[in-house]
Amino acid sequence: MSPLAHLEASSDTPLYKQLSDQIRIYIQTGQLSAGDKLPATRDLASQLGVNRATVSAAYQLLESDGLINAQVGRGSFVLPSQTPKPRPSLILRNELPSPTGHTNAGISFASSRPSQDLFPLSEFRDVCGEVLDSPDLPSILQLGSPFGYEPLRQWLISQSGSHNDVVITNGCQQALDLLARVLVKPGDTVVVEDPVYPGLREPFARAGARLLGVPIGADGCSLDALEPLLARERPRLVLVTPSFQNPTGASLPLESRRRLILMARASGATLIENDIYSALRYEGDALPSLKRLDDAGAVIQLGSFSKVSFPGLRVGWVLAPPQIAASLAEAKQWSDLHSDHLSQAVLLRFAQSGRLQRHLRRMVAAGAERLAACLEACATFLPDGSHFTRPRGGMNLWVRLPAAVDTARLLRRAEDSGVSYLPGPFFSLSGGEHSSLRLSFAVLEPDKIREGVSILANLFQQELERAGGAPDTQPAFAMV
Amino acid sequence: MSPLAHLEASSDTPLYKQLSDQIRIYIQTGQLSAGDKLPATRDLASQLGVNRATVSAAYQLLESDGLINAQVGRGSFVLPSQTPKPRPSLILRNELPSPTGHTNAGISFASSRPSQDLFPLSEFRDVCGEVLDSPDLPSILQLGSPFGYEPLRQWLISQSGSHNDVVITNGCQQALDLLARVLVKPGDTVVVEDPVYPGLREPFARAGARLLGVPIGADGCSLDALEPLLARERPRLVLVTPSFQNPTGASLPLESRRRLILMARASGATLIENDIYSALRYEGDALPSLKRLDDAGAVIQLGSFSKVSFPGLRVGWVLAPPQIAASLAEAKQWSDLHSDHLSQAVLLRFAQSGRLQRHLRRMVAAGAERLAACLEACATFLPDGSHFTRPRGGMNLWVRLPAAVDTARLLRRAEDSGVSYLPGPFFSLSGGEHSSLRLSFAVLEPDKIREGVSILANLFQQELERAGGAPDTQPAFAMV
Repeated sequence: MSPLAHLEASSDTPLYKQLSDQIRIYIQTGQLSAGDKLPATRDLASQLGVNRATVSAAYQLLESDGLINAQVGRGSFVLPSQTPKPRPSLILRNELPSPTGHTNAGISFASSRPSQDLFPLSEFRDVCGEVLDSPDLPSILQLGSPFGYEPLRQWLISQSGSHNDVVITNGCQQALDLLARVLVKPGDTVVVEDPVYPGLREPFARAGARLLGVPIGADGCSLDALEPLLARERPRLVLVTPSFQNPTGASLPLESRRRLILMARASGATLIENDIYSALRYEGDALPSLKRLDDAGAVIQLGSFSKVSFPGLRVGWVLAPPQIAASLAEAKQWSDLHSDHLSQAVLLRFAQSGRLQRHLRRMVAAGAERLAACLEACATFLPDGSHFTRPRGGMNLWVRLPAAVDTARLLRRAEDSGVSYLPGPFFSLSGGEHSSLRLSFAVLEPDKIREGVSILANLFQQELERAGGAPDTQPAFAMV
Repeated sequence: MSPLAHLEASSDTPLYKQLSDQIRIYIQTGQLSAGDKLPATRDLASQLGVNRATVSAAYQLLESDGLINAQVGRGSFVLPSQTPKPRPSLILRNELPSPTGHTNAGISFASSRPSQDLFPLSEFRDVCGEVLDSPDLPSILQLGSPFGYEPLRQWLISQSGSHNDVVITNGCQQALDLLARVLVKPGDTVVVEDPVYPGLREPFARAGARLLGVPIGADGCSLDALEPLLARERPRLVLVTPSFQNPTGASLPLESRRRLILMARASGATLIENDIYSALRYEGDALPSLKRLDDAGAVIQLGSFSKVSFPGLRVGWVLAPPQIAASLAEAKQWSDLHSDHLSQAVLLRFAQSGRLQRHLRRMVAAGAERLAACLEACATFLPDGSHFTRPRGGMNLWVRLPAAVDTARLLRRAEDSGVSYLPGPFFSLSGGEHSSLRLSFAVLEPDKIREGVSILANLFQQELERAGGAPDTQPAFAMV
């Protein structure tokens, strides 16, 4: 392992996690290859001046993520990389079609989307009526520009307070796809957070990008891990979700946001900020977006109405420097000419009339209750030795169970017991995170959340007991 | 030139056109390269057993399309291929943003889209009201399946009378893009009609396809040219618009449709039918689509509400064998999750309630008047020696002027005179068709059409007189 891992004793990130993060990157970038032997725990501990248990914990984490393999009496070896395989059938089944968050099985934690029960239907009907009565209706129904419905574009630009341009997309998923088409050549390096929502990384993988992951902890992606990666790998793009990331719910603190902008600028990487959850803050002060903090106007920001209002209308946007926006509009034209006008006009009216703000207040109040219920249920029910993130907004939290629990294998049994979720490997760049899962709490009422977490926790506990591992003495605790 | 061109004396296609079509394909496929000398007209005429004037006419057509160059005393030589360059700015400017068909300049023949004056606004408002009052509203506003809004899908499948599956797309443009992503690998050969709408060929070009053109005449694409191409080039895909093709307005007769299906099947090529104009038939009997005629269920058919109702809503679809539909849905998911639900629900209601059929009757009545006005104006005003197609439906006709007229160069002057159009090279795969133009008549009222064609015809006549060419003695005549 060279250069020698460098650990920061003063960091909030535990030493074992810092070490495993760095080894993970060595493996991803090929500095450690399949078959390479890691140093003995004793030797590395003495080299680094840390406790041997710290190195063991780092190796255990890497092993549970499927990156290395410990062979008794021989040492630990790097495993062949598991190319992250998208599993669309899993998305098709779990992420999308269940409109209520309640699968046939009963309680689904599998969907990161707004609760349909909170849709303000009567206000939506009023807004549609106003659009239908407007003199703009004929031009709304006619073909338009690939940049999007001009009144919505102008409104978004004015809201952004930037001199950048806006291209309207079919939700932020299409923004990612267009960015991959326009900015990525096969072989380009793209850095994403790890774990990460597959819909975010997949367009770049399909464009032929070489994807590298930066570990994400309670305080967002690890800048200590990112910094050497930028210097060494010179990525074309860095994609982050600084507020309430999917799947972890983690957010990047203000100082880290500033540092990230400077780091990306210094390295020449283009920074893409996925900012679709930030309005859903349930506690603490709002943080400025990377886009707001970037006085150079170079950050590309993705926004969407999907998480804060009606995802079925598929309206998102990219705020980008004018030349990039022009390239995106050209790609958009060959993709689908432009996005549906009716939804754009309706959502503009919804926002401009103040109804979106009122709806957001109701969503935030409900989200706060649901998050609190989920955190409390995790603390109460999860098996000893479990960890979970403590998001302050958004729709998701991330649970790491003791290593004996395989969440993908247990999913079927969980669904038979009436509860669904998405298992960790679905989000892991390396296909690891076997003992993790994402809990999406926004679509469920508090009592359902408590019931669902309790059922899952029982199942996980049974699994631990069956595995016969000596139960950890630590209770479940939040990764704050 | 080998194998020797084979001409069918019994074909409806004139011999000079058959010959030029075949030479064009030799050039496209590299059997004739830049700098190659064509046989002397006398020699080739005697080899083929045709009149020398036939060979001369073929060479003149190739020269006017920029494929060969005749050097006095030396012979005719193949020119370097002009890679078809998409000119998005031209599309952005002319094809899309003018909602009325009337540019600032006055009369625009540049947009192949429905007339906004004919939009049934009050019926549209009624339909929206019905959707907004339906109990399905919450699920319309929620995330759904990449396949599309299920009630619309089911209705389209039932209308198709096939056992194929449907994926809803953002207009037929996205259907083309998804097909290119799913079916084409870089280097695969894709056959399109030539001239062709750039939006149809561009997604395949961007996917790395090798595009070959089959010449299209009054009776649709030349099957006599296609047949040897299929045998020799083994294309992956053949894309045709059998009814009222854009830009020519040409349609494939029933017998040719049958023959095309058999030819594609025999060669192993997948046949894609762009069927977005067929409902806009102004005279003659409706012809069955390729999809209806294909008892093997292998033809992929593209449909859309854009040409027959409200293009700003961006709802199209692909009807395809289930396995291909599943791949398209997967690609759709990574592109934009799914299409906007509101427009899908509104258009389904518009169609199911019978309002689409009533609206179509009004569109067909207006279209018939506009087409008749355009044909009459072409016959009356265009310079002697001009040719134009005689479509029986759709939105476009194709004009070929005497070679001394350069339609791209003249566009600026035409717009200064208050009339716009799209010049031939915009549609030509080889960048030829310098003396051609597309006239899109559907957005203009008959008096505007007469006025516009008359202004253009004057301009073209002046250009011919300035070029000083002896005016042809033939009047403008329709290519029927």
